[in-house]
Amino acid sequence: MTRIAACQLAPVPDGLAANAELTADAVREALAQGADVVILPQLVTTGGVLEDAEQARAVAVASGHGVFAAWAAACTARQGSVVVGGFCEAGDDGQLYNSAAVVDATGLRAVYRCAHLWDRERVVFAAGSAPPPVVDTAHGRIGVLVNYDLRFPEWTRTAALAGADLLAVPVAWPAAQPGEGGGPDGQLVAAATARLERVAVACADRSGPGWTAGSCIVSASGQLLAAAGPGRSAAWADVDPEASRDKLVAGSSDLWLDRRPELYDRLTAPRSTSG
Amino acid sequence: MTRIAACQLAPVPDGLAANAELTADAVREALAQGADVVILPQLVTTGGVLEDAEQARAVAVASGHGVFAAWAAACTARQGSVVVGGFCEAGDDGQLYNSAAVVDATGLRAVYRCAHLWDRERVVFAAGSAPPPVVDTAHGRIGVLVNYDLRFPEWTRTAALAGADLLAVPVAWPAAQPGEGGGPDGQLVAAATARLERVAVACADRSGPGWTAGSCIVSASGQLLAAAGPGRSAAWADVDPEASRDKLVAGSSDLWLDRRPELYDRLTAPRSTSG
Repeated sequence: MTRIAACQLAPVPDGLAANAELTADAVREALAQGADVVILPQLVTTGGVLEDAEQARAVAVASGHGVFAAWAAACTARQGSVVVGGFCEAGDDGQLYNSAAVVDATGLRAVYRCAHLWDRERVVFAAGSAPPPVVDTAHGRIGVLVNYDLRFPEWTRTAALAGADLLAVPVAWPAAQPGEGGGPDGQLVAAATARLERVAVACADRSGPGWTAGSCIVSASGQLLAAAGPGRSAAWADVDPEASRDKLVAGSSDLWLDRRPELYDRLTAPRSTSG
Repeated sequence: MTRIAACQLAPVPDGLAANAELTADAVREALAQGADVVILPQLVTTGGVLEDAEQARAVAVASGHGVFAAWAAACTARQGSVVVGGFCEAGDDGQLYNSAAVVDATGLRAVYRCAHLWDRERVVFAAGSAPPPVVDTAHGRIGVLVNYDLRFPEWTRTAALAGADLLAVPVAWPAAQPGEGGGPDGQLVAAATARLERVAVACADRSGPGWTAGSCIVSASGQLLAAAGPGRSAAWADVDPEASRDKLVAGSSDLWLDRRPELYDRLTAPRSTSG
């Protein structure tokens, strides 16, 4: 079993150094409490809402930044532990990205750039075009998405087909969008995704005024195992990577082998402008 | 609003004439009770479990068969009404298909051949290769899938992108597969699909020993509006076709316009044999 902590944090607007400390503290604390995989929210290094590209550029960091070394140093305290956290990336191409880093004790393992930008994120960021990475770790194969990516079954399917046991998703869910089922709508989307993909899903949300603090962990069968809510520092749950590898639903019926990829070309057709 | 009846039936094994009467009666009764759209189970014309192709061939019908004329005749009793039902199709190519017919008072509107065959269905049937039809009716645009198709997000997405307001799904859910959430697992899959695609989903299940009698109707927001269960003749609910056309989740974020089809080519890649 893999013990997951989906940590809720309220990073300080523009406070790069303060947020580096805040996140490293959160990682250390979660690992001390037994977490194998620690997930941190979207854009956790910069905090606040980025209003425009100028503001974002002032606090963007390259993937070589010290904050990732701090997370890696924290990981040395617990064998095999992994951190996935969102950050505002200054790309080597001069663009800004809404990215997530995967870090373990050996350092930076992968960087993913959000491919589906939410609403005004498009004012600030360029959209990534690489598929979600699936990183082989001591605690299973971790696929990484960011926030709004989770709403696109094509993208979650892409990560699941690449072998992810767990989808780790730094998110930032605005409190203005409550779900009809009572919890944040994003939790219901996470559960629906887990059920259809048969993969565990963990989302780390922002906390503080304006955010749902809806961090959650869903099993590979779509069961909501943990949901944090306001006032809690993290959602905690154990998930079994093996459960995510079982795509057999009956007798000879296997959800992966029974796909008909030769029929799915409508998913890659250019968008029609007629709607 | 569209009033849907997802009818549960226990067709007689091999009883083609008896099942034609059973289904026409069910349609008439549902329409008399106010249904706009009536959905009938998978393979409702033939009943039982088809053990091999010989048995199936003896009861297979072509799309010109009188059972569809009987459904169409029933539809004349209620303006604009539509029937979707599963049948064992004798294709003009000599193959057998696990098909669904869409019928209204004007006659047969469309035939769909199941593309994802469940378990031993593959012993009997050839898999279809055409996309799910989306039929424009007086009660919205009805997309048609059959049974195991519902488990493939690529296929439900294909129907949703083609403009379906409602996914009408003749199913046959074996009682041996209860869902962890209490109801049939298929209901949870239907709800997950509705939530991610923002389209209403209605499944008509088989009743009688060995089947879950799990007919259900889910709203475009993923709410389970009705679930029949054993002893009930149908699940009933009203759904709003307009709700399925609203893909806007916030400000400028539209689930259809924000897709990145140019990135989804991994979904159409041939299956890897290495698993």
